[in-house]
Amino acid sequence: MFSNRVTSLLNIAYPIVQAGMVWTSGWRLASAVSNAGGLGIIGAGSMNPELLEEHIQKCKAATDKPFGVNVPLLYKNVEKQFEIIIQNKVPIVVTSAGNPSTFTQYLKQHGIKVMHVVSSSRFAKKAEEAGCDAIIAEGYEAGGHNGREETTTLILLPLVCNAIKIPVIAAGGIATGRQMLACMVLGAEGIQMGSRFVASEEASSHADFKNAVIHSKEGDTIVTLKELTPVRMIKNNFYEQIKQAYENNATVPQLEELLGKGRAKKGMFEGDLKNGELEIGQVSAILNEIKPVEKIINEVWKEFNEALQNPLK
Amino acid sequence: MFSNRVTSLLNIAYPIVQAGMVWTSGWRLASAVSNAGGLGIIGAGSMNPELLEEHIQKCKAATDKPFGVNVPLLYKNVEKQFEIIIQNKVPIVVTSAGNPSTFTQYLKQHGIKVMHVVSSSRFAKKAEEAGCDAIIAEGYEAGGHNGREETTTLILLPLVCNAIKIPVIAAGGIATGRQMLACMVLGAEGIQMGSRFVASEEASSHADFKNAVIHSKEGDTIVTLKELTPVRMIKNNFYEQIKQAYENNATVPQLEELLGKGRAKKGMFEGDLKNGELEIGQVSAILNEIKPVEKIINEVWKEFNEALQNPLK
Repeated sequence: MFSNRVTSLLNIAYPIVQAGMVWTSGWRLASAVSNAGGLGIIGAGSMNPELLEEHIQKCKAATDKPFGVNVPLLYKNVEKQFEIIIQNKVPIVVTSAGNPSTFTQYLKQHGIKVMHVVSSSRFAKKAEEAGCDAIIAEGYEAGGHNGREETTTLILLPLVCNAIKIPVIAAGGIATGRQMLACMVLGAEGIQMGSRFVASEEASSHADFKNAVIHSKEGDTIVTLKELTPVRMIKNNFYEQIKQAYENNATVPQLEELLGKGRAKKGMFEGDLKNGELEIGQVSAILNEIKPVEKIINEVWKEFNEALQNPLK
Repeated sequence: MFSNRVTSLLNIAYPIVQAGMVWTSGWRLASAVSNAGGLGIIGAGSMNPELLEEHIQKCKAATDKPFGVNVPLLYKNVEKQFEIIIQNKVPIVVTSAGNPSTFTQYLKQHGIKVMHVVSSSRFAKKAEEAGCDAIIAEGYEAGGHNGREETTTLILLPLVCNAIKIPVIAAGGIATGRQMLACMVLGAEGIQMGSRFVASEEASSHADFKNAVIHSKEGDTIVTLKELTPVRMIKNNFYEQIKQAYENNATVPQLEELLGKGRAKKGMFEGDLKNGELEIGQVSAILNEIKPVEKIINEVWKEFNEALQNPLK
C-alpha cells in the first residue's frame, strides 16, 4: 500500500488526480477515475449550476470513493456553484484561474478540502497563505488556460516545492508512469493528468476530438491568445485564423471577437475540428490510443512502480 | 564508480556535459569541467578559427581529460573550424543548428566522437541515421537558440528515447541533481547543463551578466525573434525594443536590422545589460550563486546520488 501526504489528504489509493477539464470531465470520467483508485474531478467550468448538480449526483451514485469539483474562479456563477457543492457534500474542491483567498476559508468551514492550481511559486505561496490544503503546480506544457510566465514543469516543481510546505501535485506534461516518477523526484507528492484522460473512453468530449488528440504530434499544440487568457490548443484552422489576425495586427477587441463564445464547446464537445478551440496539452504527442480509465490508471501506476524500482532503466 | 553508455563513450567519470555557449565557454570553463570529471566543451560559435585553435591548445595544456568543441553549423567558417579540430586531435565534437549528415562521417573518419543537438524526435532519428554517437535532446527551457516546436524537456525525452537507440543526453532546464535524476528516469543517460555553468567562476562571460543570471526570477526569460532564429533571453531593455517592434508590426528585415550584429557579445561578454542579448535558460530562476566549477559538479553529483537512493525524498 502506497501512502503519502496526498493519498492521506484525499483518501485515495494512488496519488493520481484527474484534471477538471471543460467539456471533457463529467460524472462518467470522474467516477471512473475515483473507482480506479485516483481522484476524479468534475469540471464545472463548462456547466451551469443545475447541470453541475446533476453531474455531482450521478457521480455519487456511480462511486462511493472521494471525488472533487474543479471551479475556475473566472466565471460569474461561481458562488452558486459553491452552494451546490456544499449542499451536495462534495469532499474536495480544486480552484483555478483566480484568487485563492476569496473562497478557500468559506469552503474549508464546510469541511471541504481545497486545492488551488498555480503556475508560479509566488501564487503557490499565496494559496498556502489562504489556507489551501495542497497545490497543483501546472507547467507550460499543460493544455487549456496557461500561466503567463511559461515556466515548465521541470523548473516549476523545484521552485514551488522550495517555496511552500503543503503538498504539491505536479501538472502539465504528464501522461506516463516514468513522467510521474520524474515529477515526484522533483518534490511533487502526486500528479494531475489531463490529456491522458481526454484519450479515455469515459471522457465526455467528442470522439473526433479524442482522435485528433491521439493523432497530434510534436509541435502540433501552441500557447496563443496571450493578450486575452493564454491557452494551449491544437494548431487547427481556427488557430490559422488567429495567426492571420496577429499578422494583420489585430487589436484585443478584434481577437475577442474572433474568439467569440463557445469555441471550446464547438471543438471539444461537438467535434468541429476546423472551427473549434481544441484545448489539449503538449503531452498529446506521446498519446496514441484511447483506453478505458481503469487501464490508464493501472498502466501509469505499474510503470511508476517499475521505474521506482529501477529509476535508470 | 558510476558507468553507463555516456560515461563509456566520452571516457568521463560523471555523465555531466557542459553546454558549448557563445561568449561563455572558453578553455577555462571547459578544462575546469573536464578536470572535475564532466565533459568540458569549448563553444566555437563565438570564435574565429585562430581563436578556436588558441582555446583548444590552452585547454589541452590545462587538462589531460577528454574535452570537446561545440560547432554550430550555421556559421560560414565551419569547415576551417573542423580542420583545426582534427589537426589538434580534439576527441569529441558537438554539432548543432544544422544538418548532421553533412559533417558527421567526415569527423568520425578522423576518430572523433560526434554528438548532435536536437529539439525533436524527427531530428534525433536523422542524427542517428547520420552516424552520430549520441544525441543531446534540448527542451524549450534552454537558453539561446531554441527549437521551433517548443517541446519541453519533460515531453521531449520520452519521445526521443523511444525513437532512437543511441544514448540520449538531456538538456534544457537542468541545474540540480534532482533535475538530473528526473531526466534520467525519463530515459536520458546523461545531462548537459548550460545556465548552471554560466553561473560559475570559470565562465568567460562578463561578471555583470553572471549577476543578472543569478538574480533572474520566474518569468524573466522569454523565447523571441521566432521569425529569425528563436532565442531564449532575459527580458531586458533590448527585449522591450523587440516587443515594441512587434507591436509596430515589424517585418523580418526590420527585426534583423534591430538585432544587428554582435548583440550577444555586447550583453554576455561586454556586460551591456541594457542593449545586449542576454541568452540564458529558464532554469536561471533557480540559480542564486556564482560558484567554482568543481563545487557545481560535486553538488550536482552528490544530490543526484542522494536522490537515486531516495527518489521520493
